[in-house]
Amino acid sequence: MDAQERQKLFDQAKEWVLQAGRHIRDVIDEPLEIDTKSNPNDLVTHMDRNTEQFFIEKIKQHYPTHNIISEEGYGDQLDTLKNSTVWIIDPIDGTMNFVHQKRNFAISVGIFEDSVGEIGIIYDVMEDVLYTAIRGEGAYKDNQELPPLDPNLSLDESICIINSFWACENPKINGKKIQELIKKVRGTRSYGSAALEFAYVAEGIADSYITMRLAPWDIAAGIVLINEVGGNITRADGTKLDLLVNNTILVANQAIHEQIQNDYIELK
Amino acid sequence: MDAQERQKLFDQAKEWVLQAGRHIRDVIDEPLEIDTKSNPNDLVTHMDRNTEQFFIEKIKQHYPTHNIISEEGYGDQLDTLKNSTVWIIDPIDGTMNFVHQKRNFAISVGIFEDSVGEIGIIYDVMEDVLYTAIRGEGAYKDNQELPPLDPNLSLDESICIINSFWACENPKINGKKIQELIKKVRGTRSYGSAALEFAYVAEGIADSYITMRLAPWDIAAGIVLINEVGGNITRADGTKLDLLVNNTILVANQAIHEQIQNDYIELK
Repeated sequence: MDAQERQKLFDQAKEWVLQAGRHIRDVIDEPLEIDTKSNPNDLVTHMDRNTEQFFIEKIKQHYPTHNIISEEGYGDQLDTLKNSTVWIIDPIDGTMNFVHQKRNFAISVGIFEDSVGEIGIIYDVMEDVLYTAIRGEGAYKDNQELPPLDPNLSLDESICIINSFWACENPKINGKKIQELIKKVRGTRSYGSAALEFAYVAEGIADSYITMRLAPWDIAAGIVLINEVGGNITRADGTKLDLLVNNTILVANQAIHEQIQNDYIELK
Repeated sequence: MDAQERQKLFDQAKEWVLQAGRHIRDVIDEPLEIDTKSNPNDLVTHMDRNTEQFFIEKIKQHYPTHNIISEEGYGDQLDTLKNSTVWIIDPIDGTMNFVHQKRNFAISVGIFEDSVGEIGIIYDVMEDVLYTAIRGEGAYKDNQELPPLDPNLSLDESICIINSFWACENPKINGKKIQELIKKVRGTRSYGSAALEFAYVAEGIADSYITMRLAPWDIAAGIVLINEVGGNITRADGTKLDLLVNNTILVANQAIHEQIQNDYIELK
């Protein structure tokens, strides 16, 4: 994909994201049909499905050769990201926030070509704040370029985004080591939307984000943003992500990523 | 204080809060002078002090008989709230967010008369969102009245605001019981501004908020808001708050307050 073609694709994707967001804002106070998926707290609404359907139709019409991976299951089954252009979409990231708060959720669209993240768009719908990145051309919050992350940050002056669940006894990670991390950092936060939590690390308003199970659509756009500001993203054990499966995640400012991974993360 | 006098006091306090907020927004990108207080993560800036000074001067000039309790120490030393009108002020609640994020902080002003909370104002400065309450006259988010909290809420469908620190081994509360609560509720969040976290419970976008050490200025305005929507506020052990000292705090929807307190909170 040459630069001009990529820019055109970005402009189109951005227009659809904004259009979908406007629609969600228009109907935000209408009654929701809420179902659950894997467990009683894994929520999905008709708005997740409708928004996904909107993207599927647009992409199939305008880019019939592109593939799609999307949260609510309309997407293509892929064995590899190689040799294709793939849209990886979460129509509403942070559905629990969408249902309970009517804010703090995002539309997340990542576009990968031949396994490389080319375009990332994360739209905080109710705030009308758009985080975007094109590979090699920087990351933006609305029209403002995000500066590179502070290379001199120390862990004890950093803010870590982590859900308190991972400080508990749990089947994925040693909670006691996470408790040590919680006591080490300056503060912890938890916002309930993975895409926005990636964006906050890219923006530098938090410095790390740790979680034990994210799907491709939770992270695809965020990866492109984080890459553009010099942050590090790996699985929580420091190994490389596989975008076609669920991953544990450690996103962090590059100055503290290795220290967190080495000293505080012990997977089960 | 009769209703008319109280309304006038509310209008005046609200005007000063908005004025202080506008000033903070105007200078938000200027360099900050940052000091620490009780520990390296207990931050204070010249903007906390300047904003406090702004309120002190206004109140002393217009209400010379009123007393003031305020975070940065300019206030009056009181042995009792009885027989006086007291402004309880946090000029910037969520100073860590103010410093690291330049958002997610609030101005909090509570006005108590003869120990009773009469007026509560919490201003999310960067969002320009104003939460207000006058005793007996309801709570508002901007111009929209907040509905009473859902009396049929169940704990396992609730969202709890709690900092992950309290799930760790700590000197205040049994972290293991808190871990049980974290697993019981639908989700947890942590935003880093006590005043806003009170406001979110009042708004019903979260259903409980637990923390182990809040000062009068962190909670005064929030108490008035929560009272107006039917929520419960006590110390974490269920006993009555003393507004002149630091308190442990359990704020919750009335349907789940007792259950949280009885089944999940064990103070040390």
